[in-house]
Parts: sequence; C-alpha cells; structure tokens
Amino acid sequence: VITLTTDFGYRDPFVGIMKGVILSINPAARIVDLSHDIAPQDITAAAWVLRHSIDYFPKETIHIAVVDPGVGSSRRALLIQYQDHYLLGPDNGVLSLALQEKPPVCSVNLSNQAYHRQPTSATFHGRDIFAPVAAYLSLGVPALNFGERVEEFVRLPFPKPRKSAGTIEGEIIYIDRFGNLFTNIHEADLAGLPRNRLTVLVGAISIGGLAGHYDRASEGDFVALINSSGVLEIAAYKDNAQRRTQAAVGEKVQVKIP
Amino acid sequence: VITLTTDFGYRDPFVGIMKGVILSINPAARIVDLSHDIAPQDITAAAWVLRHSIDYFPKETIHIAVVDPGVGSSRRALLIQYQDHYLLGPDNGVLSLALQEKPPVCSVNLSNQAYHRQPTSATFHGRDIFAPVAAYLSLGVPALNFGERVEEFVRLPFPKPRKSAGTIEGEIIYIDRFGNLFTNIHEADLAGLPRNRLTVLVGAISIGGLAGHYDRASEGDFVALINSSGVLEIAAYKDNAQRRTQAAVGEKVQVKIP
Amino acid sequence: VITLTTDFGYRDPFVGIMKGVILSINPAARIVDLSHDIAPQDITAAAWVLRHSIDYFPKETIHIAVVDPGVGSSRRALLIQYQDHYLLGPDNGVLSLALQEKPPVCSVNLSNQAYHRQPTSATFHGRDIFAPVAAYLSLGVPALNFGERVEEFVRLPFPKPRKSAGTIEGEIIYIDRFGNLFTNIHEADLAGLPRNRLTVLVGAISIGGLAGHYDRASEGDFVALINSSGVLEIAAYKDNAQRRTQAAVGEKVQVKIP
Repeated sequence: VITLTTDFGYRDPFVGIMKGVILSINPAARIVDLSHDIAPQDITAAAWVLRHSIDYFPKETIHIAVVDPGVGSSRRALLIQYQDHYLLGPDNGVLSLALQEKPPVCSVNLSNQAYHRQPTSATFHGRDIFAPVAAYLSLGVPALNFGERVEEFVRLPFPKPRKSAGTIEGEIIYIDRFGNLFTNIHEADLAGLPRNRLTVLVGAISIGGLAGHYDRASEGDFVALINSSGVLEIAAYKDNAQRRTQAAVGEKVQVKIP
Repeated sequence: VITLTTDFGYRDPFVGIMKGVILSINPAARIVDLSHDIAPQDITAAAWVLRHSIDYFPKETIHIAVVDPGVGSSRRALLIQYQDHYLLGPDNGVLSLALQEKPPVCSVNLSNQAYHRQPTSATFHGRDIFAPVAAYLSLGVPALNFGERVEEFVRLPFPKPRKSAGTIEGEIIYIDRFGNLFTNIHEADLAGLPRNRLTVLVGAISIGGLAGHYDRASEGDFVALINSSGVLEIAAYKDNAQRRTQAAVGEKVQVKIP
Repeated sequence: VITLTTDFGYRDPFVGIMKGVILSINPAARIVDLSHDIAPQDITAAAWVLRHSIDYFPKETIHIAVVDPGVGSSRRALLIQYQDHYLLGPDNGVLSLALQEKPPVCSVNLSNQAYHRQPTSATFHGRDIFAPVAAYLSLGVPALNFGERVEEFVRLPFPKPRKSAGTIEGEIIYIDRFGNLFTNIHEADLAGLPRNRLTVLVGAISIGGLAGHYDRASEGDFVALINSSGVLEIAAYKDNAQRRTQAAVGEKVQVKIP
C-alpha cells in the first residue's frame, strides 16, 4: 500500500500523474489518498495528517507527503523508515510529526538518481523522485539503495502543553472540515483528573465537563471530548465550532482542574 | 467491492484512514468513493446518493454510508442486506432510501464487538465499526455474526408526488453540481402522458414540453427532461438552473397535463 | 489502467457510478482519477489535463474524458488509439489536444450499441457508453468492434506562439491550483536563447531571467521557469501568481530576447 498526502488539490492532474508513474513501475501497487487538499505550502497541516493516519495502515505501508515549496532547491529528499512503515517526502519537516517517541530505524537521502525519472524536473519531485522511489520500494528494493544514510533532518517543533497548579495550557493544532478544534492536549495529559468537573476554555467559550460523544449536548452547544485521535477536541454539536469561535491553529486552550 | 459515502470531505484524512483499516483486514478489497462532499450532517442527501448509485455496482457490493451526527450515542449501527448488496451505516435513515419496494433480506444491529476496532472511539465509528465490519463481510463472514437481527429501523419519509386532475405536484429532492434540479416525479408517473405538451413549473419558471437531452435548448434556456436516474429534472443548457432559479431541496414542482 | 477526467465534481456520485459500471464488467480494472473538478463544460481545460498527463501512464492505458454539454445530441462518441494508449470521449475536441505531431493509429465512432448499457440514457453517456466501452476494451475487445472507423473529428485550435525579431508572443493556456500560469511557449521554443537574459512580460509584470526552480526568488517574488510539463510558467514563490496578476486563460505573454 502507498498513501499520498499533498497540497496539489483535486482540480489539476498532478496526483493522477504520480499514480501513473507508480503504476508504470509497480502495476500491483495499492494507492490510497490521505488528503490532497492541504492548504498550499502548509507543511504543518500535512505533518499532522500523517501523524494521525499512519497507525491505521497495514505494516510496510509507504506514505508519501509532498508539500514542498523548496522543490528543486538544495533541500534534500528523504526516506525515513519508522517502526514498520516508510515515509517519503522533502526534508522540510513534513515527515517529522509522524515520528513519535522512538528513533527512526533508518533515514536515507534519496541521492541515487538511478531511481529517479529522467530527466528530473526542478518543480515536480512528487512525480520524478517520490513516486518512482515509492514504487521501487514497494517492489522490495532495499532502503539504502536509494541513497546514503543521514542522521539529522528538519523537525517541526512539537508543541507540548504546559502544566501548572490547576491548569493545563495547550493550543489548537488542527481544525477539521466540521470545524472541530483538535488540541495538543493528549488523553494521557488528563489521566487521573475528574473529567466531569474540568472546565475547558477557548477564547470567550467555557465548557463544563468532558463529554463522551457529540450528542450529549443540545444542538449548537459546545462540547469538549477526547476525540478519535486521542486528543482533547472542542466541537459544536451539529454546528461548526471554528465558525462560532473564529479560532485558528495556534490559539491557546486551557483546562482548569478543580 | 466496498463503496464509501460520507460527509468527511477531502481535506482531512478520515476517508483514507477508513481505507487503511479496510486494507489492513482485507488487502484485496476494491474501494470506490461515491461522495465525501455530502454537506455536513445532511443525512437525506447521502441517502439519495446511495439510492441513485447502488444499482450500478456488481452483485455483493458493500456500501458504507457515514453521515452520523449521533455517533457514540445510543443510535444503533446497522447492516442491511437488500437484494444482492449490503448496506452499512448508522440507524438514522441514511440507508433507508436505497430500499425500494421490496423488504430487506436481513437487517442486523452491529452489536458484536469482536468485529470492532479496540478501543472503539465514541466519535469515529466509520473507522472503528463500519470499516472493519465491511472488511470482514467482504472476507465472507456471515451477516448474522455481526450482531442480532432487527425488524425495525429509522426510515426517512419518501416524498411521493401528488396527482390530481390535470396536475402532478412533486418536489426537488436533490441538486447536482451542475445545478440540475432532480425531482421526485419518476418516469413512471408520466407514463402515457403527451410529453411534448406537458408544462413544467418551478417557481416563476415555466417550461413547455419535455426534451430528450440538454442540447435541445438554446444556451441558457431551461429544459425539462427525464434524467439518467429516471426522474424529472429541470436544467439550464450550459448554465446552472439552481443559480438561475434559487430553488432549494423541498421546493414544489408542478407538471400540468393538457 | 483506466483514467477518468470529467467535470462531474466530487459531491455527486456520478464518478463512483462510472467506476461501478466498469468494475461490473471488468472486476480487475485499475481506475485512476485525473481530475473531476474541471469547470463545468470547460472542454479546453479537460483537453489540456489530458495532454499533460497521458505520457506518465503505462502502455495500453485507457483515458476517458467526459466534458460533454452536447450529450444526447448528434455529437458522436469516439475511441481514438494514439501511439500506445486509448482515448475515449465525446467528439467535441476534448480528446484532440492529447494528439501531438503523429496521426492517430485508429479512430472509431462508438456506434455499436451492443457494448452500451441498455437502456442508454440521453444525459449520462459517461455511465452508459464510455464506462462500458472502456471496460470491454480493457478486457481485450478490439477497437473496431465498437463501431466504424472515422477519418475526421473535432479538433481544438492549438495556439502556437508567434515569433518575431526579438520577441516570442504566447498566451496562458492553463492555471493550476497554486495559481501558476502555464503558457503555450514550449521549452523547444527557447532553445539556444540566453535564459538568464530573457525578459518575461505578462500584464504589468516583468520578470528578468528564467529560474531553475521556485525557490530562487524571495517570498512573494514572481519567477519564470520551464515547468514540469516542459512549458514556460509564471509563478509567485510561496504565493499565487493568478491572484496577484488577475491573469486569465488566453492572456498574452511575451518573451523579450536581448
């Protein structure tokens, strides 16, 4: 299985072209779209998409992420083997949030042009480098054939919530199409706390207690819950919390502990 | 073949994650997207999409529909076997318009947690219940293994056109991306009537006679025809009838018989 | 492999229905979406998408393009075999830009109704003609079984750049989701010219020299380069050149030679 995450959108044929290149090399590849509607050049959003998705795929899945404003410059192209899956993308941090506590098994700079499309364009490495490398990798070519091992690569800052007496302060890290606000406050950060008696604050909104599911509230009410990605989420039942609060990624969220 | 119809959109990775779960269980599953751009929580729109689509798929196709504002509450998760295909979704009516005259072969409440992802989240049953059940069903697990048989489930009202002397009164049930207005007046409702001499009225628009295809009109003209789903449709040739008329789902449409 | 290019969008189930029809006939078909977000009835945009994509697919790939305002009228349905791939679509020019210097191997009017869905609607030939013909073609049915050979078909004008002393005048032919402006000035048109000293003019914008990649510029700066499709492109680094210039398809672009 090969997954694709890009900011290419759905109007242009760029994603389809990458699939054509993959299928030309490995006709048996299974290709799954994660998202192509990442805002143009929003490396961080793509990185969160990847982090929240890779655990649900079969072992040995190859995940390509192409959000790449520096394409064609000296930024490197990377293959990172992490636990039992592979990550392919530019060395601009887009792969880095998918790496959690453990170190990667192996990181490779994709310098071996024998596995690139020729001629290699300066503006579409998704087609000319990442798609063919993914296809050859899916055929069993060993990771180190694609280039030399690297030790360091660009890592995005992972915002940790700050804990003080009576308060956990986090921030919004992702907003989904329903307007649900994902925070960086993980389920584990709330372990042992009395969920019913917590107060969640974002902007002028105050929500009393964590819910088990959206439907606990009346229509339009705000609700806070641990969502399916395991993080604290603020939602509005049958409504759009982002539109209601005008909150943006990076905005502070506080949890008050009684 | 497994099809997916959701209101998850194309920006977030939720659809891709469901595919990852399916392929983790059945690597040979063929997955087809029907639509993921259902308006958030528009159960009726998803129900029409399903009704107008399932006849075109191979026998034994499994159709998943997830438009599910009540996810995590006490609403049940259903598997309905209807004729030679399977429908999976929440018990909120989203599956019900796909059922036409005949009774379902079998309806099952998906209560057997052995086929759910563990832990099962309260907010993403698409990933944790419907995707794995579909995958196991595609591997041949019998329907009744997933839970107990149910006799009743939520059914959306199916708006029937009203017929009186000289008039058939129906309504708009779906509007496609071209702005074409689908009505609930079926081809059979017009059987035996003189198509050339009917008058179709919607809002302030009056259209004389049914056309065979869009191109009968001049550019911008309104045209009424029996569309590819077998229902009366109002379109504007090379234009957008919805934008021109500002019509919405539920708006009345009249057919005058001379 | 079968690819799909349409103006059907992602909200309605029309694309999924075509896939259902294909898989009902050939369960082993691999289907790839090129784009379904072509502006409604924009035959030229679909024709460019096809031209810029087909070279990246395996031999024997079947490309379906359905942008078809004349569906159901007397316009013909075509199968064109060009080099080692197949093109299927209405005879309105949508296939014609994919044909480059060489003549097609064979062109067929899809008149043999034995390979059409019955009954054949007047409004959805994607489902009733192109999908089943593609599926049978992928099973090995010979091209001439689908109808009779034709010699002529509708061809869109291919705008050639005009060259005079010191100037090449072309035009914008396509604008991608990043707002990058594709022109009809091909890499070959600039052969032997001093790329560093050319000046590219579009509207009030003047760009000195061609870049190797986007990142050469400062954020927001305009940049001209030969893009991954081999044509002169005007972009704005980490910005949207279309929004900045308000340029549209058809607008003139000049290259001044020192």
